[in-house]
Parts: sequence; C-alpha cells; structure tokens
Amino acid sequence: MSIKITGVGSYIPNQVEKNSDFQEHEFLYEDGSSFEQSNSVIIEKFKAITGIAERRYIHSELNNSDIAYLAANTAIEDAGIDPEELDYLIVAHNYGDVLHNDVQSDTVPSLAARVKHKLRIKNPRCVAYDILFGCPGWVEAVIQAKAFIQSGLAKKCLVIGSETLSRVVDKHDRDSMIYSDGAGAVIVEATEEEGGILAHETASYTFEEANFIFFGKSNNREKNDSRRYIKMHGRKIYEFALSRVPDAMKSCLEKSGKNIEDVKKILIHQANEKMDEAIIKRFYRLYQTTPPEGVMPMTIEKLGNSSVATVPTLLDLILKGKMEDQSINKGDVVILASVGAGMNINAIVYQF
Amino acid sequence: MSIKITGVGSYIPNQVEKNSDFQEHEFLYEDGSSFEQSNSVIIEKFKAITGIAERRYIHSELNNSDIAYLAANTAIEDAGIDPEELDYLIVAHNYGDVLHNDVQSDTVPSLAARVKHKLRIKNPRCVAYDILFGCPGWVEAVIQAKAFIQSGLAKKCLVIGSETLSRVVDKHDRDSMIYSDGAGAVIVEATEEEGGILAHETASYTFEEANFIFFGKSNNREKNDSRRYIKMHGRKIYEFALSRVPDAMKSCLEKSGKNIEDVKKILIHQANEKMDEAIIKRFYRLYQTTPPEGVMPMTIEKLGNSSVATVPTLLDLILKGKMEDQSINKGDVVILASVGAGMNINAIVYQF
Repeated sequence: MSIKITGVGSYIPNQVEKNSDFQEHEFLYEDGSSFEQSNSVIIEKFKAITGIAERRYIHSELNNSDIAYLAANTAIEDAGIDPEELDYLIVAHNYGDVLHNDVQSDTVPSLAARVKHKLRIKNPRCVAYDILFGCPGWVEAVIQAKAFIQSGLAKKCLVIGSETLSRVVDKHDRDSMIYSDGAGAVIVEATEEEGGILAHETASYTFEEANFIFFGKSNNREKNDSRRYIKMHGRKIYEFALSRVPDAMKSCLEKSGKNIEDVKKILIHQANEKMDEAIIKRFYRLYQTTPPEGVMPMTIEKLGNSSVATVPTLLDLILKGKMEDQSINKGDVVILASVGAGMNINAIVYQF
Repeated sequence: MSIKITGVGSYIPNQVEKNSDFQEHEFLYEDGSSFEQSNSVIIEKFKAITGIAERRYIHSELNNSDIAYLAANTAIEDAGIDPEELDYLIVAHNYGDVLHNDVQSDTVPSLAARVKHKLRIKNPRCVAYDILFGCPGWVEAVIQAKAFIQSGLAKKCLVIGSETLSRVVDKHDRDSMIYSDGAGAVIVEATEEEGGILAHETASYTFEEANFIFFGKSNNREKNDSRRYIKMHGRKIYEFALSRVPDAMKSCLEKSGKNIEDVKKILIHQANEKMDEAIIKRFYRLYQTTPPEGVMPMTIEKLGNSSVATVPTLLDLILKGKMEDQSINKGDVVILASVGAGMNINAIVYQF
C-alpha cells in the first residue's frame, strides 16, 4: 500500500493588491518611530528581499472557510471521488474565520465543520477537525492523514490549508506587505500504486523560538486600542530557518532512501524569496552540490505568503500546467517543505 | 501492545462563581426582550435543569495556555516520565488564548507551542499542535495519539484539554451560567500491559447541525458593538445529543468486545445534568436495562461546563481519589464520551 495525492485544488483570490497599493501607508518601526526612507524606497527594498510584487486578498463578503470550501470542492472534482467516501476532512489554518472589518477569530464550530457543511457531506463518519500548526499546518495535516490511513482509521482524506492573513495585518507594519490570502486542498488516499509519501519529518522548536511569530499591537502607538495583529521577528526567523530547515529536509530525504539527484522539485513554503533561495542553496551544499535550475518553483512574486495555503496552491498550479516551464511527471520525486509559527518545520518526500 | 493512560492531571481554577453571583445580571432573550420571571426564578430553573450550582473562572492574569501548562505538568509528574521523551504534545481547545477584558482569540503560536515552551522541553521531535473539534476535542486528541502510536510515529503523547469559556460569555445570555474554565491532561503511552484503549468511535454531524453552537452577538441589542460570544441552540442540542450519543456509545462498546455489564463507569462531557441523565438512560435502554447507581460520576454541580477539560478533569479527580464514593480499579472498563460543537460526538472504551 502507498499513500498518494489523488486530487488537487486551490482558490486564488482575484483581488490583486500591488506593492504600489501600499504607497500611501504610514509605515512605522516597532517602537512607533518613522522610517527615514520614503515609501518608494521601503517598497523597493521589500521587493528586492522578499520577491513579492503583489498579493491576493479575498473579497469583503468572503471568509476563510468559504475559500477553504472552494479549494476543497476543486480537489474533490479533480480526484473524481464521491465526497461521502471521505473518512477525514482536515483544515489547517491559524486565525479561523475573521470577518471583514472585524477583529475576532471565529473558530466555533471548527472550519472543518463549516467546510463539510458547505460540501453537503452527510456521512457522519467523515471526521472534520482543524489543526493549528503555523504555516506548516497543511504539510502536517497530510502527515496526520497518512497516520490515520496507516493505522486503519481512514482510506480517503481531504486535507485543506486555508488562510486570510489580510484580516490580521497591521497596516503600519512593513511586514504587512508579505501576507496574503489563499486556499489549497488535496485528496490523500491509500492506493495500490507505487510511490506516494516515501518519508516525512517534523520538528517543533519552542524552547527559544515559540514567539518568533506572535500576536502583537500596532506599530502605531497612537492607536489607543488593544487590537493585535500578526507580527514576526523577521531576522530571527531568517537565521532559524536557514540553520534548521536544510537539516530537516536532508533527514527526510535520507529516510526516503532517495538521493539528492532524484529530487526533481522542491515545493517550499514561501515567505521570503531570498530566504528560500538561501535554504535551498544550503540544502544542496549538504550534498556538496548546487541547486539545479528550476528545482524550486516560486509563486511568491504574484501570490505573497498565504501561510498554510502556499504549498498546496503551488502543487495545484504545477499539476494543472498553470506555471510556465514547470511540470511534475509520473515517477518524479518531490520534496514538500514548510517552516513557520511554533516554530515548526516539516518536510515530505513524495514520489508521483 | 496496548495504548494506556499512564498519568493524569488537571487544573481547577480557584475563583468560584456561584449562581447567586448572577443575581444582578440583566438576562435577555435572543431577540433582546426581557424575561417575565425574576432572576431568582431563572437561576432556580437553571439549577434544576443543568445541575450547575457554581463554576470556576481563572484569574485575570492567567490565560488558557497557562492552565493547560499547569494540568500538563501535573500529568507528567503523575506518569513519572521525562518530558523530553514526549513524541507529541496536543492541545484541544476552541477559543485560543483570550486575555482578560479582551475580545481577540490568540492562536499564533499554537497553544501547544506555548505549553511546550513553558514546560521547557527542548526536544524538537516532540510535535506540538492544536486540535479544534468542539467540546469533544480532548477525547478526539486521545484517539489521534493512539493513531500516531499505532502507525509508529510515537510512543508517548501528552494530550491536554483546556478552555476558558469565561472569556467568551455574553452576560445577557442565560446560558452564560453554564460555561466554566478548566484544564485536564493525560499521558498516553504504548505499553506491554493489557487493556488500555479497546475501541473508539467518532462522528461529525454537520449537515444540519454545524451551527447548533456558534459565535453570535449579545442578547443586549442596545450594545452597539460587533463583539460576538459563545452561543447555542440548547433545545436542538438536547434533542440531537439524546438521539445520537447513545448509538455512538453502543457502537463503540460493540467494537470493544465488552458487554454492558462490564461497564463500570461512564465519564461523559458535562453540559447539562438532565441531558446526561437522559443520554445514559437511553444508552442502557438499548440493552433493555437501567443505569447502575453511581455509573456516571458528575462534577457539573461544582465545575459547570469547561468544554474540552471536563472529561480529563473528571478522570483526574476519580483516579486521585478526590471524588466521594467514586473509584476506578485495575481491570475496570470505562467509557469516555463527549458531544459538542461541530456537532461532534465521540467515545472511547477503555480498560484500566
């Protein structure tokens, strides 16, 4: 028995927020002080480091669970399964449903319950739950689906990563330009085919790193409210990711029994282009080699960082032939990898 | 190999909120209209139906993840394990960390990451994640821990249920008297002993039931804010639970190979005493018999409904000899059962 992805889907919001749309924002340092540079310079530097030119926001009438449903529906159609056959419906997210212009995270019922309701699935034996695991939540949910299949609890699972970071950004924080909205989903099934999930690896670094990504007040100290927003210590995350992610990927690849030459693609969570390039470079350096051209397909320029949605969205785009010069063919070995709040890291070595 | 609970712990907040403390509240119907009865009559009727005389609230300086940590620490000590040996640290909750006098749910990093940080666990291979599954979240997390152990991913797991419903109650809603705060935790391990988890059962009813428990506005329509609170359709839940929970428990007991006569205790999620009594009565009726005296230990009178924390707290109290006329002995078969937001139902048949 192998455990394979038999269908993929994603929802990319159609509201495009360009870097130029941030031109009039009042960016401030954490201590509330102003930047020395103009917004044009700030945005240019931001683009040079992160690679982000634009990002997607959902429309005001939509919610996180709505786009989770849209991605899920596409994945179900792609797999050609009857949704009533699903044993698990897992939604990875971080902030629940946050209404437009609202501050509260709505997590009851779970987003999984909402998606299952929207899908009109009747079967009560389809267990619907949410996992919170930072940006690596979707990859981790795939690992959990595998465990449920292996332990005999499931045969078919729907695994969704969905997030609307636009609803939790501080407009006075330069980092607000990083965050995006999106949803991706896959069907994970037990099959008699070869390949599938060959190995996986997870690590939770909480001893010193737990609060590298956190909920904090606006950089605008004059705002006299208690509202909090997504915040991160970018420099610390950069150093952490660079020192930990390549090792986790190597450990995973070793477990899989595959060699570095076998790796056709690396689909990595995208928060910062320069960081991802440095991670991949260091990963290949562990094998005394350099990354092959095109091994790391990137969507960050157009899609920003949509948290749990980045990896499944990337996968969907490639498998559906929607990324120029990118394809995955039968037999290809691919690494899925992620790093984010917790701080959590994970990786899957997968053979198509 | 069997999968057993080798340590238990709980944290019961020491701030007692008595029914009389609600005497001055202005209770309103959903439509904002006033009750015909006095608060004394409302409270008396409430007590007669739910069995709740008082509940516990955490102190203003504490948070959900703080009490999750306190319960976890006790469970680790009780099991006598080195926390560095833990392969998983799972926190079931519903609303994250909600600061005193604040409206936002803080879920990043996950509560599991916060608890692992507080426990000073260094081992990055201890995977720390949160599950959202309504009140049945803790029972479901135990089932997930079992799956991880069975699939070879884990040997020792820490499973916590922690909730601070006092932070999300609408004071104008009579149902606010139901909700309570608390945390319970267990260590789940693979052992060579007999017994442990014999069977389990889970069902997610979302087709018509998804919004029986939801996030809604205050019953005080004059409040001109968008703040939302925990809300429920009590009558619908009552009917749902009564028609579905006994069947799930029976199905689970059948899978376990045990008979109704073998069942020594039923530890059921406590939201309403009359409802639990009706569930148990109907469960036994499925076997043409009646519940034995003392089979369903109750804490609801003193502790109210602490969501995911009720079942592990109850287990901790009994195993530590803190409940009068209640004990669990080696070899005893016990059913753990829960019902709540989703709507989700689950049950475990466990032999001590």
